[in-house]
Amino acid sequence: MKLAFTVEYEGTDFSGFQSQKNAPSIQQAIEKALKEITQTDISINYAGRTDAGVHALCQVFDFETDIERDDINWIHGINANLPDSIAVKSIARVSDNFHSRFAAIDRSYSYVIYNSRSKPLFFGGYSHSDTNAIDIDILKNQAKMFLGENDFSSFKSSNCNSNNPVKHISSMDVSTYKKFIIVTVTANAFLHNMVRIMIGTLIDIAKGENDHSIEEILLKKDRNFAGKTASAKGLFFLGPRYDSKEGILSPVSNLFDRLKI
Amino acid sequence: MKLAFTVEYEGTDFSGFQSQKNAPSIQQAIEKALKEITQTDISINYAGRTDAGVHALCQVFDFETDIERDDINWIHGINANLPDSIAVKSIARVSDNFHSRFAAIDRSYSYVIYNSRSKPLFFGGYSHSDTNAIDIDILKNQAKMFLGENDFSSFKSSNCNSNNPVKHISSMDVSTYKKFIIVTVTANAFLHNMVRIMIGTLIDIAKGENDHSIEEILLKKDRNFAGKTASAKGLFFLGPRYDSKEGILSPVSNLFDRLKI
Repeated sequence: MKLAFTVEYEGTDFSGFQSQKNAPSIQQAIEKALKEITQTDISINYAGRTDAGVHALCQVFDFETDIERDDINWIHGINANLPDSIAVKSIARVSDNFHSRFAAIDRSYSYVIYNSRSKPLFFGGYSHSDTNAIDIDILKNQAKMFLGENDFSSFKSSNCNSNNPVKHISSMDVSTYKKFIIVTVTANAFLHNMVRIMIGTLIDIAKGENDHSIEEILLKKDRNFAGKTASAKGLFFLGPRYDSKEGILSPVSNLFDRLKI
Repeated sequence: MKLAFTVEYEGTDFSGFQSQKNAPSIQQAIEKALKEITQTDISINYAGRTDAGVHALCQVFDFETDIERDDINWIHGINANLPDSIAVKSIARVSDNFHSRFAAIDRSYSYVIYNSRSKPLFFGGYSHSDTNAIDIDILKNQAKMFLGENDFSSFKSSNCNSNNPVKHISSMDVSTYKKFIIVTVTANAFLHNMVRIMIGTLIDIAKGENDHSIEEILLKKDRNFAGKTASAKGLFFLGPRYDSKEGILSPVSNLFDRLKI
């Protein structure tokens, strides 16, 4: 039987989702919790790696098991063995050939910018703070240029080892909430650091610090024309989307609603 | 001329408000910022010490100076020299004999409890989490027993060196917000750890783990009858109140509204 779980985490103290030697990862914490409650070694599949410091409101992982337990017992059992900054939210009994990564139709992220001369303080760990004025109309107009299928070579980390830089962005939304600017993007897949470089570049253009347009930078296919990689702490993985027959929760649609618990 | 400022802080990384040797304090950070912008040594008065890890939405400090600056320059100048977790919010030009501590009419605190089998996650640093059911009706009824003038000997830390354990509680409010319980209390003054011991005791009684009532525990005048000291991270100083002629911002009235920025 195959089980899939949605999981939230506060990424501040982790080196990212994927297990690494000598560094605390979300994957390691989950596999350790599974070992505690099943007494077996379980290796999980997951929807997407997230970098060190990135948060998730709905990451998905799955594994095969023949252990029978009620849904609520799985959830409480895992959570009782996880650190406070990671929490499993839901469980689904998925089809046998399901794989969290390969079955995902698309993935969504939100990036939170705090644009003010003041400080976000209690939201400091969950936003990128910029004290210079960001022109929201410019940001919105430039963000639209990412829509559709494009070569994202200008927007990938030099460590990215994907062999296909062409990705399809199906949705790009810019909203504001008090002094926050939230950019939400959905794509079939993302390159390493792609969202953070997109955001860093949008911010530069919207502050008048980069004279190129997003359209021009995409055409350059050269990382040097894009902006800085925005900080990890402002990035939230909202979740992957799957065929509804799997019964997995949809990606979180409103970050602020969710954060208010 | 005497200046008074309101200041917010996220207390997680500080050893409390008051300066201490070899430990980072809010006071030290503020006095260092004042030195940077005035090139003089300034020693501040403040409304109330807060313990290590306690947050403040409206602490007040004051000092005497003959330096002339616009209000906005004072605020931006200080903030530019403070760590991200401390932010000055407002300034008032107060009367010559003003003193943040001695002029305060009363002080208000809110304590945030998260009562659920799940975890608060993104609010984990700002709440005390309890997984066992807290009976909110019992909590409300017991909380009311604190109202009025009482001897708080049962509700003070063994380190408390106040020589008057009698305090007057003028307001006590219990509200809920989703899975949060927020207890807000106003008094003329507080003993060391008083709010946190009050909260720890209320939680025990409302979970059925302490058979005494608040009324009985007050009469005992013995710390052993009260509950644990609730954790610092759930406590927020909402602010002191002064004669309105001083022009200082009132205490924050709604913690959640404020935290949403």
